[in-house]
Amino acid sequence: MSGDAFNTIPGFKELKGVGGAFDVEALQKDVSTLAQREKSHNKIVPSLEDAVRRAGLKDGMTISFHHHFRGGDYIVNMVIDILAKMGFKNLVLAASSLTDCHEPLIKHIKNGVIRRIETSGLRGKLADAISGGLMDIPVVFRSHGGRAYAIETGELPIDVAFLGAPSCDPFGNANGYSRDNDSGVKCGSMGYAKGDAQYAKKTVIITNNIVPFPNVPFGIPESDVDYIVEVEEIGDPAGIMSGATRFTSNPKELVMAELSAEVIEASGRLVNGFSFQTGTGGASLAVTRFLRDKMLAKGITASFALGGITGSIVELHEEGLIKKLLDVQGFDLKAADSLKNNRFHHQISASYYASPQGDGAAVNQLDVVVLSALEADVNFNVNVLTGSDGVIRGAVGGHQDTAYGASVSIVVCPLTRGRIPCLVERVGALVTPGKTVDVIVTEYGVAVNPRRPDLIERLKKSRIPLRAIEDLRRQTEGMVGKPDPVEFTDKVVGLITYRDGSIIDLIRQVK
Amino acid sequence: MSGDAFNTIPGFKELKGVGGAFDVEALQKDVSTLAQREKSHNKIVPSLEDAVRRAGLKDGMTISFHHHFRGGDYIVNMVIDILAKMGFKNLVLAASSLTDCHEPLIKHIKNGVIRRIETSGLRGKLADAISGGLMDIPVVFRSHGGRAYAIETGELPIDVAFLGAPSCDPFGNANGYSRDNDSGVKCGSMGYAKGDAQYAKKTVIITNNIVPFPNVPFGIPESDVDYIVEVEEIGDPAGIMSGATRFTSNPKELVMAELSAEVIEASGRLVNGFSFQTGTGGASLAVTRFLRDKMLAKGITASFALGGITGSIVELHEEGLIKKLLDVQGFDLKAADSLKNNRFHHQISASYYASPQGDGAAVNQLDVVVLSALEADVNFNVNVLTGSDGVIRGAVGGHQDTAYGASVSIVVCPLTRGRIPCLVERVGALVTPGKTVDVIVTEYGVAVNPRRPDLIERLKKSRIPLRAIEDLRRQTEGMVGKPDPVEFTDKVVGLITYRDGSIIDLIRQVK
Repeated sequence: MSGDAFNTIPGFKELKGVGGAFDVEALQKDVSTLAQREKSHNKIVPSLEDAVRRAGLKDGMTISFHHHFRGGDYIVNMVIDILAKMGFKNLVLAASSLTDCHEPLIKHIKNGVIRRIETSGLRGKLADAISGGLMDIPVVFRSHGGRAYAIETGELPIDVAFLGAPSCDPFGNANGYSRDNDSGVKCGSMGYAKGDAQYAKKTVIITNNIVPFPNVPFGIPESDVDYIVEVEEIGDPAGIMSGATRFTSNPKELVMAELSAEVIEASGRLVNGFSFQTGTGGASLAVTRFLRDKMLAKGITASFALGGITGSIVELHEEGLIKKLLDVQGFDLKAADSLKNNRFHHQISASYYASPQGDGAAVNQLDVVVLSALEADVNFNVNVLTGSDGVIRGAVGGHQDTAYGASVSIVVCPLTRGRIPCLVERVGALVTPGKTVDVIVTEYGVAVNPRRPDLIERLKKSRIPLRAIEDLRRQTEGMVGKPDPVEFTDKVVGLITYRDGSIIDLIRQVK
Repeated sequence: MSGDAFNTIPGFKELKGVGGAFDVEALQKDVSTLAQREKSHNKIVPSLEDAVRRAGLKDGMTISFHHHFRGGDYIVNMVIDILAKMGFKNLVLAASSLTDCHEPLIKHIKNGVIRRIETSGLRGKLADAISGGLMDIPVVFRSHGGRAYAIETGELPIDVAFLGAPSCDPFGNANGYSRDNDSGVKCGSMGYAKGDAQYAKKTVIITNNIVPFPNVPFGIPESDVDYIVEVEEIGDPAGIMSGATRFTSNPKELVMAELSAEVIEASGRLVNGFSFQTGTGGASLAVTRFLRDKMLAKGITASFALGGITGSIVELHEEGLIKKLLDVQGFDLKAADSLKNNRFHHQISASYYASPQGDGAAVNQLDVVVLSALEADVNFNVNVLTGSDGVIRGAVGGHQDTAYGASVSIVVCPLTRGRIPCLVERVGALVTPGKTVDVIVTEYGVAVNPRRPDLIERLKKSRIPLRAIEDLRRQTEGMVGKPDPVEFTDKVVGLITYRDGSIIDLIRQVK
């Protein structure tokens, strides 16, 4: 029966007869067994080189990576080494973040393999080199939500995603842990990789652990995966998940953590069903402990905790104090194990977590977030990207997204670190606009943004030591003086974008 | 800082300065509490009319529905009644399927509200009327996988999806059951609704049960939802989930079920780690019971069961005989409860289940499927859509998809039903091509497709009564004679598509 036969049927402009994508006459089923297909008709290719060739990678294209393996990641260096050997040039490396372990990228920038970088953060020698002017084109820094938004709107098109996974079945269902053959490597949530797999033209999963089909629940579905490469090692377990996150014993951090918990209570948000996120950093992690005591005393529970999940958050969940965990990234082994075992510990994508597209993101439902800072200024602007010496040593992360989304955003920032002032006239790099920062907690007291008279009113009724932000800045200057201004060249080495991709600040080359 | 300031930075054609989508200078946070936002800043609109207006529905557009509420569905009739009152005309109704309860659509076809229908199946008076020539434009029948494919390739663009959900939080996370406030209405998996929500220009969730944020795990994420309408009732619980699916006591069906299980064993596929799907219909449901006995006797387990999940499949899962369940649709209360409570009972989308796009679908990993039939013919073609009288009374479902994907596809088809012959010279409507059907099991013996000499060889070694298909057809004719051919007019009332959207047969108006 041909397509022409249907041309007289009303209501259809074009009708496909037999012989479209499928030729029914020529249908040929695959009659091998599941076990045979797992061995032969799968998406596993013999080598990374092979996957690269099949994916059609060309000079100048954009490749992407996730940072769920953190300091233990082998994937970025492994892939770029091979691409360099294969002779690729001028690639755009779009990682969800980069860490100290990615120092080998320096040579691949020098040899022209990497032309441009997009990331949430940079640390270590790679960051030093880039701050020193290594690259011709500035690095684009995006928040986790901003990156998801750029990917889903097409502003950041990905040609090939190379995604490491601690488990993957032969057809591509991949996850951050394994239920069937635990290889000892796990990262928990693969939240930052989900959008890459979904939107990349081609997706390559790199795994040390092929498990039987179906690898469900999965972080990445097989429908988003094109090729699978099996390798010996995908990362250093110790670097990926460094045991349980330890509480700080730093007295200054403990003071700020306790103050933050008191701010949350005084803000009136510590009620049954509230929601919160505590970022990383000693003080913000320690807030959880103090919150726990207050929740027990009040006999209340939280509806959900969001974001990067730590073992201390998991403990509260298992204790029944937090009903649900929305996990975009696991920070320690306990978080990874909980995602595997706790039914209400739910893996979410970066987009679900924080994309500014529409009203869909979970950050918008946060009552409270506690964040860290490298620097804060008298306009409540926050810098989490460069040190006081102007050198890149941090990451945007979810800072912008949660500060905007949470009803009360609390930034923990000591007045000084060693002889370095952290509360300054103007931050060296604007990452999170002061208009979205409500409270700055220091070891000498708490400053509330004048844009939040409601909070000022409430905190005045508590015993929390309230200070004017300018007053805290003056105290800082009194303690450590005013450092000489950092000297920069005119060369721009980094573009800091806000959540929607607009540029809100530039990072220049340090002289 | 304006965009112009960045024009000199190398490597970027266009840079957005502050004031793009977000105006950082004008940033204004929402500082209400989560509880307040759930009440005021949510996606809940006052009425269905309001949702329709906000969604921008216009005459001629395509609206979509899922059929997870089965015979108890109130959503389709409720929405179309309101659209009729609002004066809409010429709409395309694209449902994942339609049942007896949608008889009221007849009047909306007559009054011009509905111009065209896409569905997997039609039953009852609506089916009778359409077979009788009610519509000017033929109904397009698609398989579950074919519909997912048409939606994701853009062949079937959806303007507004109206999706009933037994639970939804104020921001749109929706599911087929509720963990927080069980209203007594549940449907289990929402597999057929996932793609609608993802690809529709606007998605409206209709629910009787607003639950607190976050409604996780969710079937549909908030990022896919635009508006939420709260209504008194979304369906009749008895019609949605009619208790546990009962085993057949029909001796003919039991004979065929036992024979099917023996075919599976004789085919060599009943080995540790095998996978299977048993459809609905008395005999194919009963196969599960016989498979269980064989699995216990052999001491083996299945890696997964797929598709529409029944209580009897759940029992095998809970007994440890099936490791994982991939559930696109729950058939009974036990299946719905299991999805909620069993960690390895996993909700999948229609696309993941059966889309012919790429190699991604789970049907391709099936070792065995057992399917039912209204008619089968000597070329192993199967009709699950029209009766012997030519009238529409069935659904394509996943029949085409699983028959193609499974290594061994078994169709259970009695020679006769009452005085009606079911094994015929040529099926009245071609739904599943014989090239994808491997075995036909009747109450008088088993016919193997000559395209599968491997199976013939294996089955010959068993005690299964093997018959030539033509031989079975002759026996059928001997039993009930050759009925008079059905008389049709020239008018086409239905187009049967194959998985890729190509048309493989026409259904004509019954005289």
